[in-house]
Amino acid sequence: MSVCIHNGWVLSMAPGSEAIADGFVVIESDRVERVGTGAPPPADTMIDAGGGIVLPGMVNTHTHLAMALFRSLADDRADRLRRVLFPLESRVVDADLVYHATLHALIELIEGGVTTFADMYYFEEESARATREAGLRGVVGETVVNFAAPDEPEPHGGLDRARRLVAAYRGDPLVTPAIAPHAPYTVDDAHLRACVAASEELDVPMMLHLAEMPFEVEAIQKAYGVSPVRRMHDIGVLNRRLTAVHCVFTDEADHRLLSEHDVGVAHNPIANAKGGKGFAPAKAMADADLRLGLATDGPMSGNRLDLFPAMRAAAYIHKGIAQDATVFPAKEIVHLATMGGARALHMEERIGSLEPGKQADVIVIATDSVAMQPLHDPWSAVVYAATAGDVNTTIVAGRVLMQDRRIPHLDRGAIMARSREIGARIRETLGEV
Amino acid sequence: MSVCIHNGWVLSMAPGSEAIADGFVVIESDRVERVGTGAPPPADTMIDAGGGIVLPGMVNTHTHLAMALFRSLADDRADRLRRVLFPLESRVVDADLVYHATLHALIELIEGGVTTFADMYYFEEESARATREAGLRGVVGETVVNFAAPDEPEPHGGLDRARRLVAAYRGDPLVTPAIAPHAPYTVDDAHLRACVAASEELDVPMMLHLAEMPFEVEAIQKAYGVSPVRRMHDIGVLNRRLTAVHCVFTDEADHRLLSEHDVGVAHNPIANAKGGKGFAPAKAMADADLRLGLATDGPMSGNRLDLFPAMRAAAYIHKGIAQDATVFPAKEIVHLATMGGARALHMEERIGSLEPGKQADVIVIATDSVAMQPLHDPWSAVVYAATAGDVNTTIVAGRVLMQDRRIPHLDRGAIMARSREIGARIRETLGEV
Repeated sequence: MSVCIHNGWVLSMAPGSEAIADGFVVIESDRVERVGTGAPPPADTMIDAGGGIVLPGMVNTHTHLAMALFRSLADDRADRLRRVLFPLESRVVDADLVYHATLHALIELIEGGVTTFADMYYFEEESARATREAGLRGVVGETVVNFAAPDEPEPHGGLDRARRLVAAYRGDPLVTPAIAPHAPYTVDDAHLRACVAASEELDVPMMLHLAEMPFEVEAIQKAYGVSPVRRMHDIGVLNRRLTAVHCVFTDEADHRLLSEHDVGVAHNPIANAKGGKGFAPAKAMADADLRLGLATDGPMSGNRLDLFPAMRAAAYIHKGIAQDATVFPAKEIVHLATMGGARALHMEERIGSLEPGKQADVIVIATDSVAMQPLHDPWSAVVYAATAGDVNTTIVAGRVLMQDRRIPHLDRGAIMARSREIGARIRETLGEV
Repeated sequence: MSVCIHNGWVLSMAPGSEAIADGFVVIESDRVERVGTGAPPPADTMIDAGGGIVLPGMVNTHTHLAMALFRSLADDRADRLRRVLFPLESRVVDADLVYHATLHALIELIEGGVTTFADMYYFEEESARATREAGLRGVVGETVVNFAAPDEPEPHGGLDRARRLVAAYRGDPLVTPAIAPHAPYTVDDAHLRACVAASEELDVPMMLHLAEMPFEVEAIQKAYGVSPVRRMHDIGVLNRRLTAVHCVFTDEADHRLLSEHDVGVAHNPIANAKGGKGFAPAKAMADADLRLGLATDGPMSGNRLDLFPAMRAAAYIHKGIAQDATVFPAKEIVHLATMGGARALHMEERIGSLEPGKQADVIVIATDSVAMQPLHDPWSAVVYAATAGDVNTTIVAGRVLMQDRRIPHLDRGAIMARSREIGARIRETLGEV
């Protein structure tokens, strides 16, 4: 089966590439075959981009999809994680909620042009099942924590669970199982090391919230006299399988360590700011050529799961801090949301750009909204003007998941109705927390 | 004619009010008659909000609507105003462009839930004409500058033009003509004083870019040894008719002056950050109880003209700076976008909240998008999850301008086609600038 998307601006994100006017992308089976301009070659399925913008599917490098049904709960409260979220999760999170909420969130990703996500939660076999059903590409990381988790009564029991997840999904073309120790303050050193050993033994990715919390920085500084990144280095956690999430409280020495060990970094500008953590030094990380990608964080933190608000937040915040309008120009921001994300997940050989041989993860952003016209610069239009609602086509591994905003294989109405029911139950439970 | 909007969350923004579940708003002619909950009273037109969120139309306190057709030009460049924009404007801005581009922008405002805007540009009689046609409420400020403007070859010629605008639109129910001296660095003291005298004589509002540019701060500091706000105070510019735009480089002493003179402040978080100016001290301004509203700035700066991205930017940036998640909670942000904006324009007696006797400027935000469900908290959903595309109904002075995303009185297709044509001409001209 071949697909040809034509009549659009193509932002291929191939090294050194510019925006291609009147371009086309040819997909053969699950891969990109060709990117060009002018008269499009025939294909089994022709998709007219209608003057829209064609680019690689976006990569959301860190989220907790199953928290979609908690969204808008207890926003703007101090220390919400420990005061509201952990207690709430212990009451309501079960396999069914994770499956359903993940499906809800996956619709949002498809509608918002995200084709690859990295997830960290509980009951990740349910997230994996939903991901397979939706057809997205996901790194699904089973959480390891030092307390009774919703899916494992024993502290650190998530590690065994992660092993089972890896066994079940090894070799899956779209779902990559992973191990997700929660954070340096919720996993002890021995278990962090055990997670690293398992990720090496099983050859799977690892994700870790790192240098996100002021109390985390303080505790590590007090106990060891070093930064969280340096501490992770010292106990052997930094390696080419790791995606370190947040890295808010990091300096140039930390960035050198992350670079030397080929660690990916998920930058969550909205979650960091909204949660009162501050601003991660993303400009310095980009200057250090880290494997830097963008992320929304979970939907209680970023609230939306598409990357349009995250792209804007990154651009605004880092220009504002630098007091320099030229910092992170639109093209670099689009890079962060595509190739940058692929690099942050160590997947840049397979996704992140539209180049022959790469996986065919492609989106089309319509440009007929009032805010997108006239279209003088497609990079700028994507970053500063587009919204998730402008995405009209989403393709993963050559499969058209959404066209003209329709997702034929998922029953959106039924899923949303179920979300409302579960939502009502969550509000009742929250009254008790 | 009466209208009743029912079956929604009503965020009336009346002092001390909370979100009203299952609420209704009754409009009689151009005014709000009643806000309540439960069984809605009969009306000539019943509008089912479908579980959506009903709130006062948003107030965009500063923009340059006619720049809509320049959007995405030369983004991310240093000193774009003087290097690109002023030269470009001198070539392409004429009455026809202002009329047409404003109409284009007004569609975006209606679609994005903005019911009142404050505009500053050239040929403002054309902006006023378009505004009347679109049915929005606008403060249209004719620009006064010390160089040959697109509409007036004589320096400061805009002042006479403003007088003619005031004569033409005095008493208009929706269009408020105004005088808009551009900035302290583009209008000399004598003409700033003349603008103030004219605004007093004619009893019309005045708007001024203030404390926005580092070079402005430096020049005034060097010449007079004071801040821009203090300088404006010293020459008699601060008064209850003025909306000061930006106020990035201000301190508590400046805020006291602005407060004492009852000056409104338009906070443009996106434009300030994206333009590399930095972050205005909006938290301190709010703490000083200034008349503080939100704004997008022109579409080259904020790119989108709806206030959803501006609300998010304000929340994220000021929480991030304070490293405190509780700063500017969602309800306060909605206040900034509605009552705050009304106060910033000194229009709080007429608009900004849904209270009996006030002008019936009302919007409905649908809540059926995946990112808005389940809806645990309507304030949070509006600020952190909604986009312009979720607004489905926009009413100004009791007139339904948009329902179910349709704007019956404007030919959207023809206006967009014309924008594309003019856009192509602008790109050609830019090649020469």
